[in-house]
This record gives sequence, structure tokens and C-alpha cells, in this order.
Amino acid sequence: MDKIRIGIVGYGNLGRGVQYAVSQNEDMEVVAVFTRRDPADVATVLPVRVERYEALKEYVGKIDVMILCGGSATDLPMQSSEVVRLFNTVDSFDTHARIPDYFDRLDAAAKETSHLGAMSIGWDPGLFSLARIYFGSALAEGSTYTFWGRGVSQGHSDAIRRVRGVLDARQYTVPVESALERVRNGENPDLTTREKHTRECYVVAEEGADLARIEREIKEMPNYFSDYDTTVHFISQEELEEKHSGIPHGGFVLRSGKSATDKRFLLEFSLKLDSNPEFTSSVLTAYARAVYRLHREGKIGAVTVFDIAPKYLSPLTEAQQRKELL
Amino acid sequence: MDKIRIGIVGYGNLGRGVQYAVSQNEDMEVVAVFTRRDPADVATVLPVRVERYEALKEYVGKIDVMILCGGSATDLPMQSSEVVRLFNTVDSFDTHARIPDYFDRLDAAAKETSHLGAMSIGWDPGLFSLARIYFGSALAEGSTYTFWGRGVSQGHSDAIRRVRGVLDARQYTVPVESALERVRNGENPDLTTREKHTRECYVVAEEGADLARIEREIKEMPNYFSDYDTTVHFISQEELEEKHSGIPHGGFVLRSGKSATDKRFLLEFSLKLDSNPEFTSSVLTAYARAVYRLHREGKIGAVTVFDIAPKYLSPLTEAQQRKELL
Repeated sequence: MDKIRIGIVGYGNLGRGVQYAVSQNEDMEVVAVFTRRDPADVATVLPVRVERYEALKEYVGKIDVMILCGGSATDLPMQSSEVVRLFNTVDSFDTHARIPDYFDRLDAAAKETSHLGAMSIGWDPGLFSLARIYFGSALAEGSTYTFWGRGVSQGHSDAIRRVRGVLDARQYTVPVESALERVRNGENPDLTTREKHTRECYVVAEEGADLARIEREIKEMPNYFSDYDTTVHFISQEELEEKHSGIPHGGFVLRSGKSATDKRFLLEFSLKLDSNPEFTSSVLTAYARAVYRLHREGKIGAVTVFDIAPKYLSPLTEAQQRKELL
Repeated sequence: MDKIRIGIVGYGNLGRGVQYAVSQNEDMEVVAVFTRRDPADVATVLPVRVERYEALKEYVGKIDVMILCGGSATDLPMQSSEVVRLFNTVDSFDTHARIPDYFDRLDAAAKETSHLGAMSIGWDPGLFSLARIYFGSALAEGSTYTFWGRGVSQGHSDAIRRVRGVLDARQYTVPVESALERVRNGENPDLTTREKHTRECYVVAEEGADLARIEREIKEMPNYFSDYDTTVHFISQEELEEKHSGIPHGGFVLRSGKSATDKRFLLEFSLKLDSNPEFTSSVLTAYARAVYRLHREGKIGAVTVFDIAPKYLSPLTEAQQRKELL
């Protein structure tokens, strides 16, 4: 069997994760990694050719799907439309508010050269979005809830690091167990931001820093912390590295609703992930298979998880899927 | 907006459930119910025209999708190929071993007249199948487990009723909590039939019947009970009706696996349903929407949940889906 030829654009946590995930799928191989850094400075976790970002166009015809592993803030909005003119793409764009605009631009760019670009792939957006659409469709009358955590929020950890006197920090988003239980009990509660999640901060401060001020500045930080019950723990750099070096995450999507005769139903999907980026990478890789197959069927433009039938994701043949998984 | 015109073939628990479920979806309406009984004897839960099964062909052009609500043992294998020659269909065929053959016959019949038939729709097969394919694709290395219950198994309840001296019975399938916990802990256990589920039987016996013999005959019944730890409780007809008149069900699909760097991931989907048939009906109804839309796009033949992109299920427009659910 010819393997699906994958390219990786960007080589941080996500790019490394994709390289690992492809190694777990026999029907794929990574042809090259593309970076904006000097390729000589990039040590890959498994052997693979490393190229400059500018060399992308030399790989036209040699790579079936490019997996874009840059960030949503600046990398993906710039790169995705550029790369999709040359290759089919998969990306993990996750800035919810900008999704409609991003979709339109990716769709237009992809159609210029008859490519296919799958966007916002991962677990949220991604598998959690799937849970929301399937649950909402299967149960017309009800309420859907999404909880995140317990897991590390990179954005919130970064925000703490910008506070004066802070050397390092790790922030955990934690779902409120009692709120989860109310949903599971079928109470259909209206939950405020504060009632759904708490924020736990582990902070390494400079020697002699005013800890009370740091704690206050964190807790009062608008958007990031002021709407939440936040706890701040000052710890040593050693303890941070020993106990908080992982990037775990997870969460829950629940839908609670009822039939026209008031029978109650609860649908719940949950994830518990030792490594957020490695799981996102694993999902990106499965969708690269789908993009490859759909493009061969003539599908072009931008797509999301909503547009892709599950059969395209599985390495099994359709007959095997029906026999073994249905 | 023109409503999607639904027909219901068969009017037991499932047919009634579909009528209720359609009443919860504004974009659909039930045009008629078709029955093999005398229509005059069928009291519907909501007002609707009731027709003889033989009148089906008079509704060609008046109904967009027929939801087949018969049983998998005899009704569906006979009816589905017949009805799909006249209409698009949705059914809940759930005899796993016969799925490949059923698919081929439905596919051939549907293509004869360019119709679309969605088969094996519900929660297992159905939503649980979706969990199995998405989980397996998103996490290449791991083990998938399906547990059912706590819920009533109609087939097992019927089997008990056939034991001499038994007047009535209700059988619950119960997942073994410790087995679920082992899976959640990432042990990837090999579980035997006995280790996954237990069977709880509530039995009403004839006055003076030999209870010890009944209990023994139940517990030793091959296929149904002999491979399980089974408990038998003798109760009165009144208690059976008071405490065991519902048809609850539910279950769990879990996948436990790891990345190439040994990071562990746990994916879990669970359902808790007050009424098994009413939830199955609700899923059938959502897939009727998908069948209607896909057929308008030119799709014909047999399909399963694996072949249908989630966007077709939701009453929201694609732009709304991306904005609100992604």
C-alpha cells in the first residue's frame, strides 16, 4: 500500500506530537518538517528531513497533506491560506470568536487551487464539537454543557508570568464537581462562569517579592482570573519542575434533556489526557487521513469536523468498519 | 419552511417514540402511521392518520422519509428492502452478526429506485458505534470497551418468561463497576463475558411453583445466562409493576490508550436513559433529517452512521453550527 505522505509545518509540542502520532499509524509517513528556524537548529524526536518554511513549494506532488502545527494567534491565520494553495491541510485553529472569518478565508484560498483544508481539528474544537452536535441532534430538547479540566491552560500560565516579580507559573483549570453533579442529576442549571470552573495557580516568585501583591494582581486580572474563584500557591522552581512539568488536560461535554413524555436522558463524553498537545496531534493525524481520502473523491474548500463522515477517519475498510465497529 | 414529511412503519414502543420525537423537532411532521394491524385498533399517542401497511405506495411523493419501527428479528429484514424501493428509509436493525448481509441487500434495493436507506440507527448500533470509530481513529494505540446497562434487556426478560412456572419477569443487564474502574485506570484488561456484566432477574412465579428449579433453569440457560453471574429475585406481580415497569438502559464506551511517548489517554462516552425505545426513536428522527438532506444531494444506497457527516443531523445551518457548536 502506498502510504499517505504527511508534511509537518511548525515543530513545537504539536509538531513533535504529530511526528509521534504518525509513527503509530501504519498507513502514513512523515516526508519532511518545515520550520521558520534554521533547520540545523531543529532536533527532531524521530529521524526526518527538516526544511525551511520557504522550501514548501518544492514539495508539491511529494506530500499529500500538510499538518499545520503553529499557534492560532498569529501562525495559522497567516499560514493556512498560504499553504492550502499548495497542499491539502489540517490545522487546529481554536480561537472560537474568529472561526467564521477564518473558515471563509481558508475556503476561498483552498478553492483557488482545488485543495482541501480541514480546520479547527483537535479535541476542543474537535471531538468536543462532535459531542455537542451529535448530542444536540439526538436529543432535541435539553441543555448542553462543556467543562474543561483538570488541566493546564498555557494562556493563563503565560498571563501569570507577566506579573511583576513572577519567575514561572503553571495554571490549572478545574471543573467544579458540584456543578457537574447538578448537570448529571438532570437539574439543567444555569451556571455562571464562576460556578463552572475554578483556577489553581502555582507560582514561583522572585526572592523578596511582595507575595500579597502578586496574589492580588493575579486574582484581579480581568478576563483571565477576575470572574473565577482563584487560588494561588507559591512554590519553588524545583517543586514546579518536579510536580507540574506535564501538560495534562481533559474535560466533559454533557447533554441533559427529555422526551416529550418527560423521560430523562443524560449523554456524557469525557476525556482525560496526560498530554494535551500529544492528544491534539493524534486527532490531527486521523483527520489527515480523512482529508487525503476526501480530496481524492474531489472534495475541495474548507471543512470542519462537522463536514467529515466518520468512515474517512478510520484505517479500516468500510466493510470492516460495519463488521467490527457498528 | 417546508417541513420534512415523515412516515412511521410499525407502531409499537419505537413508533410511538418516533411520533413523540418528531413533535420535538419543528422542521418535521408525521404524515401517517402504517400498521399491519387493523388501523381502527391503533390508538396513537398524538393525532395522526393511520393506514394499512398495504397503503404505503399511495404515499409515494407525499412522504420524504419512512422510519421503520419494526423488530430486527423478522420485520426489518422483510420490510426494509420492500419499503426502500418506494421511499427513503431509516431503521434500527441491531442484529450485529447479520449487519454485512443486511447492508448488501438494503444497498441493492435502494439503488434500484435511487433511494437512500440509513440502517442500524439508534444508540447501539448508532451513537456507541460512533464512539467506537471516532475513539479508535483518534487514538491509534489502545483498547476499546463497550459496557451496557444498567438496563432492561427485553430478550432476556422474554427468555425467563418461557421458563415453566414463570408468569412475568424483568431482567437487568448490569456493568461490573470494578471492571469499569480497571479500564478507567488504564489497565487495559482482557475481560471475559462474566467479568464485564452481571444479570439481575426479577421473577413473578406461579403460586406453588418450585422456585429452586426456576432459579436453576434461569441460571443455567445457555447463551442467555450461563456465562454470567446471575441473581434471581422472586417478587409479586404488584411489585414488578410498581418498581420495574420502566424500560431504562444505558452504557459506556471507553477507549484507553497511549501516545508513542507513553502518555496515557482515556476517552469515555456514556448514556443514562429513562427509556430505551424513546431515546432510540429520538436518534432515528435526527437521522431522518440527515437522510432527507443527503438524498436531496443525490446520495443513494445503504448508509450507516459511519457514512453520514454530523452536519446533516443538526437543524442548525452550517454557518450556525460553526459559530455555535464548533
